[in-house]
Amino acid sequence: MNPWRRKQQLEAFFTEDIGEHDYSTDFLFPKSHHGRLTFTSKAEGIFCGADIIIDGYQLLDAAISVDLYIHDGDWVRPGDTIATIDGPVGELLKGERVILNLIQRMSGIATLTNKAVEALNDENIRICDTRKTTPGLRSFEKYAVRTGGGYNHRFGLYDAVMLKDNHIAFFGSVREAVARAKAAVGHTVKIEVETETENQVVEAVEAGADIIMFDNRTPSEIQHLSTLVPASITTEASGGITLETLPDYRGLEIDYISLGLLTHSVKALDISARVATTKEEVR
Amino acid sequence: MNPWRRKQQLEAFFTEDIGEHDYSTDFLFPKSHHGRLTFTSKAEGIFCGADIIIDGYQLLDAAISVDLYIHDGDWVRPGDTIATIDGPVGELLKGERVILNLIQRMSGIATLTNKAVEALNDENIRICDTRKTTPGLRSFEKYAVRTGGGYNHRFGLYDAVMLKDNHIAFFGSVREAVARAKAAVGHTVKIEVETETENQVVEAVEAGADIIMFDNRTPSEIQHLSTLVPASITTEASGGITLETLPDYRGLEIDYISLGLLTHSVKALDISARVATTKEEVR
Amino acid sequence: MNPWRRKQQLEAFFTEDIGEHDYSTDFLFPKSHHGRLTFTSKAEGIFCGADIIIDGYQLLDAAISVDLYIHDGDWVRPGDTIATIDGPVGELLKGERVILNLIQRMSGIATLTNKAVEALNDENIRICDTRKTTPGLRSFEKYAVRTGGGYNHRFGLYDAVMLKDNHIAFFGSVREAVARAKAAVGHTVKIEVETETENQVVEAVEAGADIIMFDNRTPSEIQHLSTLVPASITTEASGGITLETLPDYRGLEIDYISLGLLTHSVKALDISARVATTKEEVR
Amino acid sequence: MNPWRRKQQLEAFFTEDIGEHDYSTDFLFPKSHHGRLTFTSKAEGIFCGADIIIDGYQLLDAAISVDLYIHDGDWVRPGDTIATIDGPVGELLKGERVILNLIQRMSGIATLTNKAVEALNDENIRICDTRKTTPGLRSFEKYAVRTGGGYNHRFGLYDAVMLKDNHIAFFGSVREAVARAKAAVGHTVKIEVETETENQVVEAVEAGADIIMFDNRTPSEIQHLSTLVPASITTEASGGITLETLPDYRGLEIDYISLGLLTHSVKALDISARVATTKEEVR
Amino acid sequence: MNPWRRKQQLEAFFTEDIGEHDYSTDFLFPKSHHGRLTFTSKAEGIFCGADIIIDGYQLLDAAISVDLYIHDGDWVRPGDTIATIDGPVGELLKGERVILNLIQRMSGIATLTNKAVEALNDENIRICDTRKTTPGLRSFEKYAVRTGGGYNHRFGLYDAVMLKDNHIAFFGSVREAVARAKAAVGHTVKIEVETETENQVVEAVEAGADIIMFDNRTPSEIQHLSTLVPASITTEASGGITLETLPDYRGLEIDYISLGLLTHSVKALDISARVATTKEEVR
Amino acid sequence: MNPWRRKQQLEAFFTEDIGEHDYSTDFLFPKSHHGRLTFTSKAEGIFCGADIIIDGYQLLDAAISVDLYIHDGDWVRPGDTIATIDGPVGELLKGERVILNLIQRMSGIATLTNKAVEALNDENIRICDTRKTTPGLRSFEKYAVRTGGGYNHRFGLYDAVMLKDNHIAFFGSVREAVARAKAAVGHTVKIEVETETENQVVEAVEAGADIIMFDNRTPSEIQHLSTLVPASITTEASGGITLETLPDYRGLEIDYISLGLLTHSVKALDISARVATTKEEVR
Repeated sequence: MNPWRRKQQLEAFFTEDIGEHDYSTDFLFPKSHHGRLTFTSKAEGIFCGADIIIDGYQLLDAAISVDLYIHDGDWVRPGDTIATIDGPVGELLKGERVILNLIQRMSGIATLTNKAVEALNDENIRICDTRKTTPGLRSFEKYAVRTGGGYNHRFGLYDAVMLKDNHIAFFGSVREAVARAKAAVGHTVKIEVETETENQVVEAVEAGADIIMFDNRTPSEIQHLSTLVPASITTEASGGITLETLPDYRGLEIDYISLGLLTHSVKALDISARVATTKEEVR
Repeated sequence: MNPWRRKQQLEAFFTEDIGEHDYSTDFLFPKSHHGRLTFTSKAEGIFCGADIIIDGYQLLDAAISVDLYIHDGDWVRPGDTIATIDGPVGELLKGERVILNLIQRMSGIATLTNKAVEALNDENIRICDTRKTTPGLRSFEKYAVRTGGGYNHRFGLYDAVMLKDNHIAFFGSVREAVARAKAAVGHTVKIEVETETENQVVEAVEAGADIIMFDNRTPSEIQHLSTLVPASITTEASGGITLETLPDYRGLEIDYISLGLLTHSVKALDISARVATTKEEVR
Repeated sequence: MNPWRRKQQLEAFFTEDIGEHDYSTDFLFPKSHHGRLTFTSKAEGIFCGADIIIDGYQLLDAAISVDLYIHDGDWVRPGDTIATIDGPVGELLKGERVILNLIQRMSGIATLTNKAVEALNDENIRICDTRKTTPGLRSFEKYAVRTGGGYNHRFGLYDAVMLKDNHIAFFGSVREAVARAKAAVGHTVKIEVETETENQVVEAVEAGADIIMFDNRTPSEIQHLSTLVPASITTEASGGITLETLPDYRGLEIDYISLGLLTHSVKALDISARVATTKEEVR
Repeated sequence: MNPWRRKQQLEAFFTEDIGEHDYSTDFLFPKSHHGRLTFTSKAEGIFCGADIIIDGYQLLDAAISVDLYIHDGDWVRPGDTIATIDGPVGELLKGERVILNLIQRMSGIATLTNKAVEALNDENIRICDTRKTTPGLRSFEKYAVRTGGGYNHRFGLYDAVMLKDNHIAFFGSVREAVARAKAAVGHTVKIEVETETENQVVEAVEAGADIIMFDNRTPSEIQHLSTLVPASITTEASGGITLETLPDYRGLEIDYISLGLLTHSVKALDISARVATTKEEVR
Repeated sequence: MNPWRRKQQLEAFFTEDIGEHDYSTDFLFPKSHHGRLTFTSKAEGIFCGADIIIDGYQLLDAAISVDLYIHDGDWVRPGDTIATIDGPVGELLKGERVILNLIQRMSGIATLTNKAVEALNDENIRICDTRKTTPGLRSFEKYAVRTGGGYNHRFGLYDAVMLKDNHIAFFGSVREAVARAKAAVGHTVKIEVETETENQVVEAVEAGADIIMFDNRTPSEIQHLSTLVPASITTEASGGITLETLPDYRGLEIDYISLGLLTHSVKALDISARVATTKEEVR
Repeated sequence: MNPWRRKQQLEAFFTEDIGEHDYSTDFLFPKSHHGRLTFTSKAEGIFCGADIIIDGYQLLDAAISVDLYIHDGDWVRPGDTIATIDGPVGELLKGERVILNLIQRMSGIATLTNKAVEALNDENIRICDTRKTTPGLRSFEKYAVRTGGGYNHRFGLYDAVMLKDNHIAFFGSVREAVARAKAAVGHTVKIEVETETENQVVEAVEAGADIIMFDNRTPSEIQHLSTLVPASITTEASGGITLETLPDYRGLEIDYISLGLLTHSVKALDISARVATTKEEVR
């Protein structure tokens, strides 16, 4: 993730929470009193968000120092110390909620992705995300998917063509839609087609699609449809697949399974923040 | 919610998704072909987000028109038409994912808030939210809480003082912490204190706190502690309360129950977008 | 005040003055020649704005160093050295006007607030500001009021409810207006009511307003009206009060007096900037 | 003034005041109830700020309509109606304070400039402003100076060279400083020199300065110094001149008098806002 | 191109030119005098930039109307009227330079691309651009390439992998570099490899690259290397190819030729702007 | 050039190229592997852009160090090392294209300006630029003109009045146009008039223009017209002058020749970037 986008967004998130000031610290705490804040895991899962802690506190006060005991992708258990942060106690308190809101969510996504990879348990099929991400947080969430062992589908409308039912209906056929796309975009852009029928799959293959998605098909339908696609074309299953049904897709001849649930139904990983303050000036 | 903040944020969200262009529409669809997109509920719950649909499509193309059949706060059932949008089919398709990502989330929050209000079923106690919101979406999410029948706790660190365990520890006592806060902030700012013990509650009352929160206390503890607080001071229960345990708080002598779950563990309300296109130019 | 808001605004203010370049320094002065700029008070009053000097010059050149001899809230006399700044002489000259424009204004406000506190001379009544601040400078000016010994009224429309004559007229009565407000906003938001008559005061008390303001009332009217308000409700006098009439309010049973004049009729405190340059390279 | 800069700044000023919402209107007033707000002068002076009213309310709600009865530069008397604004009553109330803060200040500057022009009462000498403006408001304030009959000195460091004592000291002499400036900047940039002595004036003339300023000189000194400057070079008096001393400068052979007081010691022109509301829906 | 990015950038470009005001129009021309500006081609080539004219003048004044006689991609000859614009004459003059600077450049790129397509004269090989675009203008310039009959290579570092000599050197071999890329990025991202030797081409094929670029190879070398690549992999020639040498590449078995010259050595197409003014008020 | 404008623009340019990430480095290269990038001239000319290299890489990673061997204005020959940059190899690769795009263009402008100065070969006439710059890059390009030995004409519409044919036509005569301008703008703003006829020149002189431009006149016409202008008024030739015809203007009695070609028909100076990577961690 682009570091200055991350910083720009962290600044926006702090501004949303702090506005002109934090009454509870800016009006009450002397700058000179220091303390230590400790982030501790209260649940089991995959941690994600080290750069959020580092960049976040750096923005609040360049003199704050962060020690990390856990790295992105590490498995944490209740009680594990994730990081300790030393600096002015007012700044430590001011930043904790925004940072927790982000790293709990990112860790929740990484953990859920990991569960999906394990539920599928097929090293020939990759789990990937969708565009069903939280507005404003796409790069954070897609990074968390990668941290959990998943892959990223396109980042937006700007980096791949996806011809869905509505696009295909407009052009009349998969064949025509793919032909139009190939005539319009350059060679660095992949063209993916959403298919539901054998006929659509055949047309997509013949028209030269780069990726063929089987939309809302059962495992046995996918099993059949995938035989129509040569190895040089990537295949993807999508639509209505859950952690519970993932094992049914194990062993299919497909390359990717995309899961909206990785980002739209996240359970945050519980992480706590505790501050040890001292009334003595420590620096 | 401030309309131009809403527009600024929608523009940012579209930019995240669209970047320089939407290959699948900007490179393929003629501007002159129009169609109709229909948002339909696929689940049961409270709808929230009409302004998102209106402002969102307005940003994409000022000539797009929106007809709403459902208003914020209305109860929807599967199959209910929420809105129809008429305009250039490319723009309709370009906007649907960002808008769905937002209104599904907001409707999910409104629905969950409504469930909490019903689970509690006590008209003397209000359900409210916390600052455990998605970074960047706080105003959207707090609006959804109101739409679902809940109330808003403070919007950020800038509009009320909250003295938590860490703040109190720093000053040595609730009494001292409240005194300091009252000496520092003006009369338009409320001072809330997080308490865990009888002694802290008594100190908070004596020191003149505006709001006393009982943090992670059982219903029976709250029952007792609330007797120590005069009616002119607002009381709030918080910490570890779930939809399942809410009924245990019915009938307590408190004013508010704040629930982090309203915004941090949201299940999106399922809403679909379907486009009916025509190759004829309709305007 | 939020440090990065202060930096963002300082950057905007420098951009307003400097635009693409400062002809008189960027085109003429070698970067390598250093000098020392001294800010000296030319009048008597309370200084306010140390962070403006530090952050302002830091923005222009991170290698500039600032030594402060006076702190925010200190009383200065003509000839007192406020700060010396060492760095490239071109940068010292480039920044002086914007910084002077701000610190002269802030010191003027702090000084005026101090005069108001002294004119009133009643430790039971606090002087506070209003929203009659210079657009874009509210946080700077409200900080200056605090520096001068005053308190802040609400920062904006977002952090407290103020029901004025126009709002009350719309709802028909103080009673109805307060009831509506209490039904709409959460418990962390204070509700202030502007009152002019005994009846309005009584209604405001009965409806549960948090703050009752006596608008444009004489000291003797206020003396009477304040007896209608219980101690748990904050009282405030406002409207047409000047430095000259403040002593007439001494001893009244009210908590706050708000003064628009603190920020809308400011006389800048005169501060000069002098540069001692050297053609030798000093670093 | 560049219209979209004006709009950008108005949006920033409203955001400063409104933040995420105006509790007193957004949470309380139905959008459908309309009213009329009237701006009325409560003092005598020159009005300035019609575009602020129009653009400001346009930003809040495009459906608001403004009728102006007074134009920029018109003389107003107590009781004169400046403008009536029709639209949703909540929006009318939401915008009034920011707009008043600006137009009162701008009208105060226009009025003060007019007083300076009249105090001088010499049609051969123009009154102009300085860079001692409020940070962030320079274009608004310089527009107000023009509205009051004054002229603008440079807008910033980017549109003219001003060689002051500190610059001259650095280069050793007026002659050298002007020579350096002429060698560095193009022909579209004027070079002004601050002078205090006869020798400096002579050097400035010989070196080809475009404007010669007599800094902190008495009228009789200026009378003498101006004889040393040919008619093709513009002359300006500056420094410590007040409304009271302006008549002493009448009849001098100079072109401009610059006055910092026009913008740094402004007394706002008193203007009131009154809303007539109706509970009926008027549109 | 994303319409609001276009508008944001046009606003930035106007701000660069206009700053706080256009002295020559804002201070001199009454708003009420209207006129007509005509853009006329003074050279032969392909026009590109209709949306720049429309959106640009819309930004300056929403009441300005634009009539287009030429569309993007049309061939123009000296004397051809491109567009007439009616509105306040001051605004017409204010906007012309920025708009000309853009449309002359875009038309120059479209014309040059067209020349390259004609010089190559091989319908089986597409001409495409590179990332050697003017900073800040990439989307404008890539749109112009499409308008001239060319195709776009990747828009940035974010929408395709390009493994160049420096990347390959880092990983030790083409094989290893491609393997790493395939392991890291998802299936919607194409992987292009820059090759110089037969061995590198073979490795790229075997490793599964999506696009193989022959970097700085002669036509006969390309002829040979292309036989090593199966039809399912896209091939591209790049490096040091000019309008003069393009015919030498006719008939090669490659899919794309990328040309940095399309955007980095542009000769603007000469277009003039003439205003017919009238002192009568025309609306 | 204002350093933070330069940084803001560099950040915008990197964002245009990098967006959310650079797949080819962010997804592939470990942060810990360092290398050295060398910028080398591949052509002969004047280098311009040292600050672009320093600030650009500083933005990407504050730990990157830059060693410069060539300074702005130095003459470079093929093979000359311009700078070496040490840091994480991924960041070195990520930044090279944007930086090259800028410094090649700036060096091309500096070189072209130098050629123009040499072609004219008249130390009494200065070469200057126009507003025909690339939108968004004006300050970069005007800096390059200065680096090449040229001078800057006005930076925008905000820092000088230019009365062109269209303005003059509107007011009826040069005399009237200049009179209006002098009545409207202050003394720090120069007024330039575009003239084509002897009569216009005479009117411009009499009306007191600061600069008289001879628009599209032949050298002999200029020779004559310049005799009509006193030495205290600056003269400028403009319109249709090329490197080839510049020598014809040698010896004319004018002060400036403005050339649009300096910025609108730039040939980039060829500069290469090479990276030496190491798999060992060097820091």
